[in-house]
Amino acid sequence: MTEDRLAAVEARLRRLEDERDIARTMAAYGPLVDGGDADGVAALWAPDGVYDIDEIFLAGRERIREMVGSPAHQGWIRQGCAHVVGPPHITVDGDEAVAVCHSLMVVHEEGRYVVRRATANHWRLSRTDSGWHVVTRTNRILDGRPEAPALLADGARGEPARG
Amino acid sequence: MTEDRLAAVEARLRRLEDERDIARTMAAYGPLVDGGDADGVAALWAPDGVYDIDEIFLAGRERIREMVGSPAHQGWIRQGCAHVVGPPHITVDGDEAVAVCHSLMVVHEEGRYVVRRATANHWRLSRTDSGWHVVTRTNRILDGRPEAPALLADGARGEPARG
Amino acid sequence: MTEDRLAAVEARLRRLEDERDIARTMAAYGPLVDGGDADGVAALWAPDGVYDIDEIFLAGRERIREMVGSPAHQGWIRQGCAHVVGPPHITVDGDEAVAVCHSLMVVHEEGRYVVRRATANHWRLSRTDSGWHVVTRTNRILDGRPEAPALLADGARGEPARG
Repeated sequence: MTEDRLAAVEARLRRLEDERDIARTMAAYGPLVDGGDADGVAALWAPDGVYDIDEIFLAGRERIREMVGSPAHQGWIRQGCAHVVGPPHITVDGDEAVAVCHSLMVVHEEGRYVVRRATANHWRLSRTDSGWHVVTRTNRILDGRPEAPALLADGARGEPARG
Repeated sequence: MTEDRLAAVEARLRRLEDERDIARTMAAYGPLVDGGDADGVAALWAPDGVYDIDEIFLAGRERIREMVGSPAHQGWIRQGCAHVVGPPHITVDGDEAVAVCHSLMVVHEEGRYVVRRATANHWRLSRTDSGWHVVTRTNRILDGRPEAPALLADGARGEPARG
Repeated sequence: MTEDRLAAVEARLRRLEDERDIARTMAAYGPLVDGGDADGVAALWAPDGVYDIDEIFLAGRERIREMVGSPAHQGWIRQGCAHVVGPPHITVDGDEAVAVCHSLMVVHEEGRYVVRRATANHWRLSRTDSGWHVVTRTNRILDGRPEAPALLADGARGEPARG
């Protein structure tokens, strides 16, 4: 009886810890990428993880590390830039998880700030020996292209991205 | 002794799960509404739940479902739209809860993005047989009208909305 | 055996509760400051806590209370203002914690909204007899000044702010 209750408590606790670990991984992206920490950003992904953005498809940690170190990204940091990743909605299923959120890219322009992009983010994550890592993050900007609302709806249902 | 400790652990765990469930409900709104999932949005509310916005008062799931399906809302999706619901501050009291957050409505306009609305959100939620649902969500835009700051202050104190 | 498992569960639960308390403290700031609750804002800090912003250095609750009550801040509230504090990334180490997030200050201007500031937020918090309180919050706007990206990177690594 005590044994059963304790096992149930341990399982519920593990679920909450899984969700915390995933939320923490997602919340690390913005500070690390705007902080210019290329290794830190890359380490959020699994070694062969994918970051699929509108303009670019980054496969593996080395490509993600290069993106952070690129003249384009370093230019944003020098100009002033905030990648604000919104509160996550997370669905865990064993050792796999789907998460969804919005993100805003806010940039400094001549003493003021403009929202350069508002983006749908669909995340697939897996539990590994060293914790949860991003397997595929798919970003599509919310400019009317149908893929972006589809990513949001799929993600909120805990489903993989269509198409 | 073990029995007492186990019961205390179960109660603390349930509190964390309640807060997680409420945060997850709130985090689902933006992705579902921008994803055009009318049934999904409506199901966040209790059957007779209320969504009280500045311009419109929606009572019951059917009205909320209609809002998502309306030509106005579908137009926003086609134009490109992000309803970014900020991190929640949640106060649980038994089977009732109050939550508060900001939200931003960011819309696509000719290749750029503008913040169309910044809004105070006050939520009342209840525990039901099928989990936590929104009983009343009250939104007022932060344009200087006194109701909006009052909603934020009331919500952060875990109190019902005044007036 | 049961004793050991129960103790482990209690420790894991306490860690999650610590993180929840810290996230809740951070999530309270925006609603309280935009709601004009000077006492509520001040009470988030330790009695001798510091709020170090670009333009101003506030040491102690009384200075923080005065900031909220100041004509400048009250003017923002009357004009319409949202201090949106982003999702936190939290690192707890015993009775001390470091957290990091972005914040956006969105203000109402003639029927529209503009992002007036996008800011790096580095938080140091301590456990006290009355819960977690802010010891030092350091904010630097993301306009290209190097301190701001450094705050984000340091915070995401769970480290104190450099310099």
